[in-house]
This record gives sequence, structure tokens and C-alpha cells, in this order.
Amino acid sequence: MSFPRVGVIGAGQLARMMAVPANDLGIPFTVFASSPHDGANSVAKFVVGDYTNSKDVLAFAATCDVITFEHELVPASVIRELENSGVKVYPRAESFQYSQNKIIMRKKMEELGLPNPKWEESSDGHTSLNFPLIAKIPSGGYDGRGVFVINDQAALTQLAQGVNGVLLLEEKLPLEREISIMVARSPHGQASTWPATLTIQQDGICVQTITPVPDISDDLSIALQQVALRIAEGIGLVGVMAVELFIVDGSFVINELALRPHNSGHWSIEGAKTSQFEQHLRAILDLPLGDPSMTAAFAVMGNVLGGPKTDMYRPYLHLMARTPALKFHQYGKEVRLGRKIGHVTMTGENLLELQQEVDHAVDYMSGVIDE
Amino acid sequence: MSFPRVGVIGAGQLARMMAVPANDLGIPFTVFASSPHDGANSVAKFVVGDYTNSKDVLAFAATCDVITFEHELVPASVIRELENSGVKVYPRAESFQYSQNKIIMRKKMEELGLPNPKWEESSDGHTSLNFPLIAKIPSGGYDGRGVFVINDQAALTQLAQGVNGVLLLEEKLPLEREISIMVARSPHGQASTWPATLTIQQDGICVQTITPVPDISDDLSIALQQVALRIAEGIGLVGVMAVELFIVDGSFVINELALRPHNSGHWSIEGAKTSQFEQHLRAILDLPLGDPSMTAAFAVMGNVLGGPKTDMYRPYLHLMARTPALKFHQYGKEVRLGRKIGHVTMTGENLLELQQEVDHAVDYMSGVIDE
Repeated sequence: MSFPRVGVIGAGQLARMMAVPANDLGIPFTVFASSPHDGANSVAKFVVGDYTNSKDVLAFAATCDVITFEHELVPASVIRELENSGVKVYPRAESFQYSQNKIIMRKKMEELGLPNPKWEESSDGHTSLNFPLIAKIPSGGYDGRGVFVINDQAALTQLAQGVNGVLLLEEKLPLEREISIMVARSPHGQASTWPATLTIQQDGICVQTITPVPDISDDLSIALQQVALRIAEGIGLVGVMAVELFIVDGSFVINELALRPHNSGHWSIEGAKTSQFEQHLRAILDLPLGDPSMTAAFAVMGNVLGGPKTDMYRPYLHLMARTPALKFHQYGKEVRLGRKIGHVTMTGENLLELQQEVDHAVDYMSGVIDE
Repeated sequence: MSFPRVGVIGAGQLARMMAVPANDLGIPFTVFASSPHDGANSVAKFVVGDYTNSKDVLAFAATCDVITFEHELVPASVIRELENSGVKVYPRAESFQYSQNKIIMRKKMEELGLPNPKWEESSDGHTSLNFPLIAKIPSGGYDGRGVFVINDQAALTQLAQGVNGVLLLEEKLPLEREISIMVARSPHGQASTWPATLTIQQDGICVQTITPVPDISDDLSIALQQVALRIAEGIGLVGVMAVELFIVDGSFVINELALRPHNSGHWSIEGAKTSQFEQHLRAILDLPLGDPSMTAAFAVMGNVLGGPKTDMYRPYLHLMARTPALKFHQYGKEVRLGRKIGHVTMTGENLLELQQEVDHAVDYMSGVIDE
């Protein structure tokens, strides 16, 4: 029994952050990159290939003991081909479909008796829902891409014609808060959650997270963790998953599932004894899961989005002097407007102060605050 | 102003652990390895070369903006040649000599008015000290290598003849405790220490550390941190340094200096807001230093030494189930008897429990406890 070799399809920031616990644990770790310049290539062995090409992916898998993913874009057919060739792939294709297709996910939530918003499929632009409503392309979207607010029938008809395929339509809810629960589960069924995370969105992109969710009742908090565990079991999850929820009228409805380490779990690198990245590795290797408890009362994470500044080093001179406890994570990506190029995290007791420092850092790095 | 490129001479576990904050900070990071199989090569770009060959080292330095070291073995002449060629090297040769030569260090401590044990140089085996005494080869030793307990004149004469060079002789003190203080200092003089660490030794090798030192008076604790800051300034330190001290009769004497990240600071990866590895990078880049405060009341680190077991993966099945909060660090080294092949860390409130779990893990991984 020696160290199993893990291969990750995708070499962006999630694979990059997963490389750290892989190396700490001594796990040989290789990423399957789209280009020689992907962010994870500087911290891991990498091969370049096309994840939609099953021959490429199978050749990569032959050099690994377990395959996992950092994104939902690998075609289900490729994943099934891996499985049929006897490759150990986690999450399994059977589970991964709930991350890859939002209609299949909605049906599964109904089957599990969990609250969905009112929803229906529509391929011709007809709907029984009231306007305004939300229309989603079932597969391939993230960070608000593939999601549309539709105000009237004309707009829906136009979208349906443009998309030329089935749409998922959902009622537009009077959202109070958006919450994410990270959960991990291993092949033999050990499962574990972290405290629920409040995700603060702007224009459909998460800009800040607060863990645990402030001002939430103990009952609701526990209920949400139980929901995450129920879904994990219900879909046969192996690895980590983000369960995204809306809080409406003091209760919740399911929004989306992401079967991978997730932006809403980045706080766990500093904020939890076991990060989502380490837990994912433990889960897919069927190792006992780590302690998910927090290292401080609060963890606040802020996404650094590309803005007018292109130099991400110079801001250190000011920010490190101002906030010595601020933790930086650069993704090794070129700065582009609105692109997630890194994140910062603060942990501590004083939530207001943590939020202020994270806000300041993010604005300063993105160039919203002038130097 | 863009990300400066850091090059590290040496590619063992210290460079490996330094690669993590380098990547988090977005710092291009390359290690100068002795072989293609060195431990840091899997997490960093690497070039293979001979660190005693100034041509090799200069060629490497030409690809970097700052050069640093993970060991004391680079010849002073090579470091000076780098400096004379205009390469930014930290720590500087001037400072590094106190880490490289224990006699020069003893003289400097005297100059700074800091307590040494009684000591003298001897090249012919004569001494005015009482037996038993400690004899040290001034350069090149670590982990107890190059350090001898000498019980009588015959043994000293024999050693002096064998070594054929100058020896540092020191009185053998009735040691109560061995303590290490990590300190960081940047080129413009910002300096910072972590709480003092108790290092527990067996056969001259550190087996466990406890931070902060339990049952130490506040006065002594502050005095020790001040000593570390005084030495850092006195030798013009840039980077991090371990100041190793002996506690004798409730006071202290200086033992050794190590001008690099040090085994006694490994606890800081999980136990401090800023680890020694991140602080070293901030210091050599002249960035503002990070917050060194602890993330928990205590941090206990245990070195995993090579023993009868050669499989370091299988122990995870038991240890992760028993102690979910235990953090593992594998160095990617082949198991050899007595070799440091990794370490484990626990942080928390209950010191006795932390020590027990670390002891158990280390014994279990080394094979002292049977499965």
C-alpha cells in the first residue's frame, strides 16, 4: 500500500489550491491542463490535453489511481467511458449529473422531498409561471452565465428561440440571503459538513463570504447541515459539494449543487482545521475525513476581481502594512475585467472589522480605491 | 512593479514548505536542487546544479530577483561571489557566517553582551574547561552531527587529531530545557518574533516542539523574544532565524543560530496567522511582515523519523480516524532509519491531549507502535 496517485481534470485555481494538501499528505498529484500556462501547473506535475476527448483523458487516467474534477464541463460521456474502463472516478458520473444538469437536479430534489422553487421545463417559451421569472440553460453555466431574469413573455419567447433547446424556468423569489453549505462524503459513506456560509453576490458573482452565517437560528443552521448531508447521501456523493440555498421567509429552497471544491468554501483554508481541498482528497481516497471545525469565530473571504489595476504585487506594500493578518491567494491568472484572479481571507472574532479589512483589500487590489 | 522571482538554494522540505506561501502570494518560485528527485521539485520549478560551484549558482541567480537558502552548506565564497555580482542574496554573507561558523557566532554573542556557555577554541586538544565538555566542529553540522560529548582528555586528544582543525569547546551545562525563538527581519529593519518554542530532544535530534513554552514566566518569555530581536539586528538578519537557547538555573545561554526556516518553527504553518515560511518570503522581499500571533492556545509538532515502517500511507487509515484534527506533512523522502521524513502538528487548548496525539502519531508512523 503506497501513496495513490491523484489526477485532476482542470488546472485552474481549484486544482492549484488542492495541490497544497496533496503535497502535505505526500499524494502524487497531476493536473490535466488545457494549456501549459494554467494556474495549477506551477505547483503540480501537469499534462496538457483536451478534456472533451476521451482518448486524451483515458491516457491521462492510465497514469493515476483516482481521477477527480475541478469543473463541471467534462462531458458525461467521457466520464462514463472512464468508469467503463475501470478507472476510479470521483464524483461518479451518476452523481455528477446533478451538478451538470439543473433539470435533473430539480427532479432529484423533489424525489428527496427537498424544497425547490416553483419550476418547469420549457423548450418552446410557454410557461405557467408568473413573470418576472428566472430562466436557466440547464448545463454549462456558472457565475451567473446561462442564467437570465425574464420580465415578460416576449423576452422568454426570444430567449427560447435563441437557445434552441430546453430551458429550466423558476419562479423569481424575494431573496433574503444566499447561503452555501459545503459537505464531504467518502465512498463508504462517512460524511461531514462545515458551518453554513453566507455568500454575498453582486451581478450574479459572489464577492464575499461570511462563515458561519451571522444571525441565523441554531435550528435553521442545523437543518441546513442536515439537508446537505441528505443530498450527499441521496446522490451518492464522493468528494466535496457545495449546496447553494436561498433563504426565503425564514425557510429555504435549494438553488444549485456544485460537486467540487467551491468558491464558498475557500474560507476553510485558514478558517477550518481541515480545508475543503484536503477533505476532497481524503474523501476521494476513502481516507477518514478531517476535523471541519473552525479555527476562529468568523472567517471572511473576499474575491479579487480583475479591475483597472494589472499589477497585483504593488498592492502588497500597502495592504500587508495595514492588515498584517490578511491572507492572500493569487491564482496565477492574467488580470481581465471581472475575472476572479484571487481571494483574500481574514479570520478572527470581530466580524465587522474582518469585513472592513476584506472589503478594503479587495477594492484596493481591484483598483476601485485609488492608491 | 511585478512579482519578483525568488530562487532557493536547496530543494528539501524547507524549500518544499516555502513553495506554498510563495504560490499563495503569486511569487514565481524556483528551487536549485541537487538531484531531480529532491522533495521540493514536485511543488516548484527546479533546476539541478551544484551549490558549491559558483558558476552553476550564478547562472541560476541570473534567472531570479532574490536568492535565499534552505541550508547553511553553501560556501561563504560562493555567497560573496553572488553579492559581488550584484545579486540580491538574503541572508547576506555577512549575517550568514553566524549560522555557518559557531566560533564566529560565539564571538558575536560576546560582543552583543549575550550569555554564552564558557567556551574556547582548541586546535591541539588542550583545554582549560572541566570534563565532561562539549566539542563542536565549527561548520557544517546539524541535528547533532559534528557535536561530541567529551568525557576526558584522552577522548579530546583523539578527536582533535581526527578532526585536524579547530574545535569549539563548551562547558557541559546542566540543561533544564532547550528553547528556540524564531525571529524575522526585513532589509529596512522591521522585525517580528513568534512565542518561544520548547524543543524536546532525543539523542541530539528534536523529536517534539511545544509552543508557547509551557510554565515559563512572562518576564523570561519577553526577555527571550527581546534577545532574538537584538541578535537579529546585531547580525543584520534578513529573513527568518532560529535562536536556540538553553535554560539553566532559570536563566538562559545562547546555543546556536540557524539563519533559515527551522524545524522548531514548523508549528507555525497551522499554529500562527503567518508561518515562518511566509514570513521568510515577506522579509527577503522587503514586504511588510505578517501577523505572527497564534491561532490556538498551543501548537505541538512531532517529527516523524524513519523507522521500521517504509509505507507512510497506510498509517493514515488509523491515524486520521483516531485524530481528525491531526495535520500531516510528508517531505517526499525515502524512509531511512532516523531520517526526518515528515512531521505532524496539532493545535488546540488541551496541551496534554495534543502531546499524546502527536506522540502516538509519530510512534505509529515510525513503527515504534505495532499495527
